[in-house]
Amino acid sequence: MTGQSLSHEGKMITSLQSPKVKQVVRLREKRERDKTQTFLIEGYRELTRAVAGAVSFLMLFYSPEHFLGSNEHTLIQTIKDQRVEVIEVSRQVFEKISYRDRPDGLLAIAKQTHLSLNDLTLKKGRPPFFLIAEAIEKPGNLGSILRSSDAAGVDALIVCDRCTDIFNPNVVRASVGTLFTVPVVEVSSDEAIQWLSHHHITIVATTPAAKSTYTQVDLTGPVAIAMGTEQLGLSQKWMEKAHLQVSIPMCGVADSLNVAAATTLLLYEVLRQRS
Amino acid sequence: MTGQSLSHEGKMITSLQSPKVKQVVRLREKRERDKTQTFLIEGYRELTRAVAGAVSFLMLFYSPEHFLGSNEHTLIQTIKDQRVEVIEVSRQVFEKISYRDRPDGLLAIAKQTHLSLNDLTLKKGRPPFFLIAEAIEKPGNLGSILRSSDAAGVDALIVCDRCTDIFNPNVVRASVGTLFTVPVVEVSSDEAIQWLSHHHITIVATTPAAKSTYTQVDLTGPVAIAMGTEQLGLSQKWMEKAHLQVSIPMCGVADSLNVAAATTLLLYEVLRQRS
Repeated sequence: MTGQSLSHEGKMITSLQSPKVKQVVRLREKRERDKTQTFLIEGYRELTRAVAGAVSFLMLFYSPEHFLGSNEHTLIQTIKDQRVEVIEVSRQVFEKISYRDRPDGLLAIAKQTHLSLNDLTLKKGRPPFFLIAEAIEKPGNLGSILRSSDAAGVDALIVCDRCTDIFNPNVVRASVGTLFTVPVVEVSSDEAIQWLSHHHITIVATTPAAKSTYTQVDLTGPVAIAMGTEQLGLSQKWMEKAHLQVSIPMCGVADSLNVAAATTLLLYEVLRQRS
Repeated sequence: MTGQSLSHEGKMITSLQSPKVKQVVRLREKRERDKTQTFLIEGYRELTRAVAGAVSFLMLFYSPEHFLGSNEHTLIQTIKDQRVEVIEVSRQVFEKISYRDRPDGLLAIAKQTHLSLNDLTLKKGRPPFFLIAEAIEKPGNLGSILRSSDAAGVDALIVCDRCTDIFNPNVVRASVGTLFTVPVVEVSSDEAIQWLSHHHITIVATTPAAKSTYTQVDLTGPVAIAMGTEQLGLSQKWMEKAHLQVSIPMCGVADSLNVAAATTLLLYEVLRQRS
């Protein structure tokens, strides 16, 4: 152990063949995440937000050689105080378990938690504000959408007919930990549409075919902004159920924006109109 | 040759050891791109936009087994008519040279072209509208920024103190070919600031410290929206030279948006105010 180490029960892991190291690597795969109902959280900022979001940790790995700041030990102690196994690993082992370009020496295995539509509460004092993400494929986009959802203050992100599970390490990374602060529900499109209808929430769909642009319609009431896949946009099902269809002006040769960029535009237009 | 093949001079490449195959793989590296002043363009949509953007091709590889549509042969013929070497490759070879998840059977080597600030013309009839991207690191972000720049109709993207070269294959991919439709200039920050000042263009910087939000300032005049790195935002140099500082409301725990999402918000706010 180095002078920087915290005292802990486990011994430092130096072997790349350690079963725990292998388990971390396996958790990059969806099948293993689904089976074990666990997932990976890497990085100081992400773990700090996970602590704030009351995530349950199972195991924390740390490599002091990789630390970038000086607050890592406080964070480790906070997680350790939750009776979580805290394990120091060698530089080489951390570089094996890390999935980032610039590892900062902290990576945890945590328990998945799943919300249902019934867990969502409509806030009093302001109109409901939801985001629907239908079948988004790229983890980076889903993570970026979470980050914008947090920033724009949506009540929840409803992921419909999921392609990418929200516990994909690249979702966690691209969300910079906002996965733990934005309520996220994974359901079928049918369930989501029924729930929104029951709560009289206006579904707003973005499509190049719409006559009004997104800045020309009233978004100050109860709204759910619905966004579709990278390739094809929203499915016919959502287009038919949408109460409002809006377009985003496209001045160039491309016919669409990146889905996370388009989502951010819509969310911030709600915010602009309501402020 | 399969029945689908076009007639061409070259023979079909089936060997993974072919020097041309190796050259394609090498072009994923910046050093090789810089040395040869060439780069890769993969995909039907990207190549179509490259043709429209008058890109000079050196070599086109195609694998009919991967084709997703029926217009590939027309595109190949168009490129072939420019006296470009067109080479059929086997499925296995294409999968080696492709850098995408879903190859669509078309990949070219093209010549880099470089614009300077002197090549930019200020359009008559409407105020200048530029985007500054300072030291963006992730190719996916730079590509997404290009896509939004095309969509919002910016006059040019000025990449300052580059970290990622615009010819990185992931920039081309994330830009979905808008790299060939948006004028892009790579210069130092000093040169860009001097040029903007000479043309009396208002520099707008985004910073959490600003008192006004981006929707509260007048963006209808000549503007250059300046965006900084993923980690640190704009450098001190740009902050000091900015005529306007604006913030983006952040309602959650995160202190910033993804840089491409934030850029899109700013560009579309210019568009909204001007329409």
